[in-house]
Amino acid sequence: MRIGFIGLGIMGRPMAKHLIDAGHELTVWNRSQPGIDDVVGHGGKAAPSPKDVAAASEVVFTMVGDSPDVEAVSLGADGIAAGASAGLIHVDCTTMSPSVTREIAAAYEAKGIELLDAPVSGGEGGAINATLSIMVGGKKDVFDRCLPLFEIVGKTITYCGPTGAGQTVKLCNQVAVSVTNMAVCESLVLAAKSGVSPETMLQAISGGAASSWQLLNLGPKMIERDFRPGFKVWHQQKDLRLALEVARDNALPLPATSLVAQLFASVEADGLREEGTQALVKALEKLADVSVGG
Amino acid sequence: MRIGFIGLGIMGRPMAKHLIDAGHELTVWNRSQPGIDDVVGHGGKAAPSPKDVAAASEVVFTMVGDSPDVEAVSLGADGIAAGASAGLIHVDCTTMSPSVTREIAAAYEAKGIELLDAPVSGGEGGAINATLSIMVGGKKDVFDRCLPLFEIVGKTITYCGPTGAGQTVKLCNQVAVSVTNMAVCESLVLAAKSGVSPETMLQAISGGAASSWQLLNLGPKMIERDFRPGFKVWHQQKDLRLALEVARDNALPLPATSLVAQLFASVEADGLREEGTQALVKALEKLADVSVGG
Repeated sequence: MRIGFIGLGIMGRPMAKHLIDAGHELTVWNRSQPGIDDVVGHGGKAAPSPKDVAAASEVVFTMVGDSPDVEAVSLGADGIAAGASAGLIHVDCTTMSPSVTREIAAAYEAKGIELLDAPVSGGEGGAINATLSIMVGGKKDVFDRCLPLFEIVGKTITYCGPTGAGQTVKLCNQVAVSVTNMAVCESLVLAAKSGVSPETMLQAISGGAASSWQLLNLGPKMIERDFRPGFKVWHQQKDLRLALEVARDNALPLPATSLVAQLFASVEADGLREEGTQALVKALEKLADVSVGG
Repeated sequence: MRIGFIGLGIMGRPMAKHLIDAGHELTVWNRSQPGIDDVVGHGGKAAPSPKDVAAASEVVFTMVGDSPDVEAVSLGADGIAAGASAGLIHVDCTTMSPSVTREIAAAYEAKGIELLDAPVSGGEGGAINATLSIMVGGKKDVFDRCLPLFEIVGKTITYCGPTGAGQTVKLCNQVAVSVTNMAVCESLVLAAKSGVSPETMLQAISGGAASSWQLLNLGPKMIERDFRPGFKVWHQQKDLRLALEVARDNALPLPATSLVAQLFASVEADGLREEGTQALVKALEKLADVSVGG
């Protein structure tokens, strides 16, 4: 199939390469040259603009930064809509606003372009190993046609509902992730501040009702002071901002998510936005003048 | 061994029976008759008071309601201290205040009574199946001598440190459990209020970084409106009160735990304290006028 790929960062590059390895013809574009060079070196073909990518493709993937970036490569002067033939499918893997997603889908309608929102989770490792979870919104029949492509880059692929539903589920995921992260942080500082070994505490509670991916994976890193990013603080903050915007638009209070976003702001205030989300514990450590470090 | 058991409720009864089944001689006491009848029917011997239990035993287990109950059966006129010979070991399995635990241990010292705090997690099922997690504080050599008894009633047995450390770790567990529960609740109401199926959302995020025991076990119950208790709201509230007391005594802010305790208070205000902790979602549903029910 003739596939386009726009946005060749740490997530986009391995995804594009998997599609090439599966035998598809890839036309690519990126804001900067290194991503292009990398994927062209793997067998992709560079195009001068998103418009040219669209003109050469049946399906165009995007994996860019945030809602304004997706708007620019979709509806901008040199964007996908400007180059697309009727019937083109745009699969947007960026985590972005569900309402902006619906606006782009509406703008596409007159031109016969289909949009799927298909944000992913699983990070760089998931992209490299093709084990991403993909949460997809849009028309069911369009999803069905793209499923073979999703299966090349991901493992758990869920059809979530109409346009925007994939983004909404991704934001629910981020809410659950970040509040669970907070649960780990508060249990660790309670142990440390009470004079109990955080490591012993973590071992004792890891097998039961307190257990979580966050506890098992981030808890030990907090104790070992390993703040290298699996998922960066500022990426988490971007997603929490989107979640809280959706909540506000729906008159939904999310008190714990809101609290966690404020504590991440404190982490950012200390210049640590490039660290992994396990740095959340530093906000509580600072508030309580304690360290969970072993 | 001659073992005493005080407190024959839903947790104490199966624990006492496991000790009898393992060949130990049990002398028991309970505040009310049905618990006594049940365990005596299984081969235990009733004593008229905690004092008499202590006089007949080398090791006395207690599994009662809260700190004041433990104080009464330990240091009261007819309590353990009044009947104990020097060298008696009191193993307290109640979840209670770490500081009251230390006060009882200090009062025991003059009489040569040893105290282990050994709160458990795993609920009624864990007690029946002898798969409890047991978090133990006290002297290491006393712990070592009691380990064979712990292995009769539990599976994951962790020595946590000096007197009170077992209680502290149990409270850390409750902090992690309840804030993770909140993570599940907020992700579900975000899905429901945004018009996405909470069930589909849960399926999509269950395999990744958002996953937790709470998500996998309580999430589906919230959707199915099954509020039968695994662990009751008012028991959770008791434990969060203890955790927040320890935090306050240590000048430790626990903002998320504190928030969750306030929302559980709203659940209690609606007369639902006997429901399971998954009823936490009802507080958010009420705030947001939405239901996550399928």
